[in-house]
Amino acid sequence: MSFCVAVIGAGTIGRSFAWLFARSGYPVQVFDPRPDLAEVVTELQAEVSADAAAHDMLASELGTISLAESVETAVAGASFVQESGPEDPQAKPKLFAQIAAAAPKDAIFATSSSTIPASLIARHLPPEVAARVIVGHPFNPPHLMPLVEVVPAPATSSDTVERALEFYRSCGREPVALNREVRGFVGNRLQNALMKEAISLVENGVISAPDLDSVMKNSLGLRWSAVGQFEAMHLGGGRQRHPRFHGPHRDLVR
Amino acid sequence: MSFCVAVIGAGTIGRSFAWLFARSGYPVQVFDPRPDLAEVVTELQAEVSADAAAHDMLASELGTISLAESVETAVAGASFVQESGPEDPQAKPKLFAQIAAAAPKDAIFATSSSTIPASLIARHLPPEVAARVIVGHPFNPPHLMPLVEVVPAPATSSDTVERALEFYRSCGREPVALNREVRGFVGNRLQNALMKEAISLVENGVISAPDLDSVMKNSLGLRWSAVGQFEAMHLGGGRQRHPRFHGPHRDLVR
Repeated sequence: MSFCVAVIGAGTIGRSFAWLFARSGYPVQVFDPRPDLAEVVTELQAEVSADAAAHDMLASELGTISLAESVETAVAGASFVQESGPEDPQAKPKLFAQIAAAAPKDAIFATSSSTIPASLIARHLPPEVAARVIVGHPFNPPHLMPLVEVVPAPATSSDTVERALEFYRSCGREPVALNREVRGFVGNRLQNALMKEAISLVENGVISAPDLDSVMKNSLGLRWSAVGQFEAMHLGGGRQRHPRFHGPHRDLVR
Repeated sequence: MSFCVAVIGAGTIGRSFAWLFARSGYPVQVFDPRPDLAEVVTELQAEVSADAAAHDMLASELGTISLAESVETAVAGASFVQESGPEDPQAKPKLFAQIAAAAPKDAIFATSSSTIPASLIARHLPPEVAARVIVGHPFNPPHLMPLVEVVPAPATSSDTVERALEFYRSCGREPVALNREVRGFVGNRLQNALMKEAISLVENGVISAPDLDSVMKNSLGLRWSAVGQFEAMHLGGGRQRHPRFHGPHRDLVR
């Protein structure tokens, strides 16, 4: 049986994930209560086919995107479920119970949530189900941005972490597993720390918002698109490395 | 008379600036007390010529890099002086007094310093000289990184700001002028804010340093190389923009 993927939620993130999974060769079942789902699915399939044709891919290398009439039919044959529904801490646990009840017994259940941890989503689920619930948090849009943050709850099995990493890698992503849950995960925590300083600089009249954007694009953004910040610090220090790292943080950049 | 540039200090930053200025067509005089300055200058000139040849440029479109025997001979005919000496708050004011005494009366005096403001460097200089002292802080290496932070002191004239911006733009850079001096300027303040959070995440065991670098490269770095953070927040919010910006910071992203 082929590896099928279910996408629950066809908003900005869900549609982009459906595109990615089909473009990576997986059959994709999409469910969303939106009334225009048929048009959305038709359009997605056309976009995936056009992109694949532009890259000289064979039709057989592509997955197809199908409309599912319900959560249950979407997940019934799925090995991997990517949930991208509303960011509602009341709704997600119920949705995952519904997904788990209809999905195969070894399916992985990933949420795109940026704020709701797997431990909250799975807290009322039986341990054998909770072991397969995990965060797979993308950066928008996931079909273009390589990172997926894979964040296990304490109840998530290491097998689930490995299988989620493997699946995202098979879609050409660069997933990173966090060691444990932390609010905002890693990317948004970094972003928020920087954003706080950015807002302060603009509010205090040091620089305009467009000029601050220009600073970012033409220095740190360009650098960090090629070299992460620890590596950049290390390289920037020459033979003696950066003097700031001769202190308590020295070991971090070894 | 042609527009000549003096580069004072031939360390990592000074050499890269000399390369950039010559590659942009300016005659460059380089001074540094290092004993191997002749070899450094010869090597730089060869690199600039090789790069220009690889881009099918005519020799006449290039500047030449010359060795100066002293600060005074380096700056004697210079319209723009880029100082990249040691980051020493005691030494820089003396060096700039020495530069100003020997340079043309309308030359601009820029420092590459990332920590010493123009107000400190120029505080004992007469007002007509202090008006021409400014920070031109690059990101390493300046011949590749587009940003130059142009930071005026209160005594710096607006004409100096404009001329510095114009000069860096003529070298293909993307300079940004700050409205006023602030410790760390903008780029390094943003970097430090993010770095503090990055170190905290690694020290608290949430993620390894190499994985954190991977998060950065494959999400924020990639994004910020194309779109600054305010613009990204704006675009990310769709029609209603990002909910976080419906609060007190709404005006920043208009």
